[in-house]
Amino acid sequence: MIANTPDPPYYAVIFSSIRTEVNEGYSEMADLMIELAHKQEGFIGIESARNEIGITVSYWKDIDSIRKWKQNSDHLVAQNKGRTEWYKHYKTRISKVERDYGLGK
Amino acid sequence: MIANTPDPPYYAVIFSSIRTEVNEGYSEMADLMIELAHKQEGFIGIESARNEIGITVSYWKDIDSIRKWKQNSDHLVAQNKGRTEWYKHYKTRISKVERDYGLGK
Repeated sequence: MIANTPDPPYYAVIFSSIRTEVNEGYSEMADLMIELAHKQEGFIGIESARNEIGITVSYWKDIDSIRKWKQNSDHLVAQNKGRTEWYKHYKTRISKVERDYGLGK
Repeated sequence: MIANTPDPPYYAVIFSSIRTEVNEGYSEMADLMIELAHKQEGFIGIESARNEIGITVSYWKDIDSIRKWKQNSDHLVAQNKGRTEWYKHYKTRISKVERDYGLGK
């Protein structure tokens, strides 16, 4: 589902990743993080796709909401497991959406 | 492959899409657009993944490079076919990357 975002400006966190072969606990944690993100103040929506590379884009009201989510204690545990077990390579890019347009719905 | 991007600031165009059932010409055009984008001035890199939703993020030096790519004549043909045949729903978001960090390579 394409996220329903407001008129810009708002923020996008682009998380691009390459997984290791370790699957243990991964999908449960991914689901839990999506569930928790929805409860965070300033959360707008999330989009995710994966084949060779995974791309998850989460949308946020402002930088402060992103900072608080990054420091969320459950999320810190997930980030640590991500670094040590699930991801071979990743990049997180924090960006400010200045303009958007589209088709449909 | 995760795009090799410079230190911020730079720009990210986040293109999220839901496809129709029409496949004719789609993958050839997608490949051609990626090839052409690489030749555009200001192009930095591109990442793409699809399952239920497709997410393609292209990275650019500045807004002007993005504007020129949007107006590229072959790209205009592709955009038109996208609207009328290949995509049921899409959203393009133009954003300025302010910060990034990562793991690996």
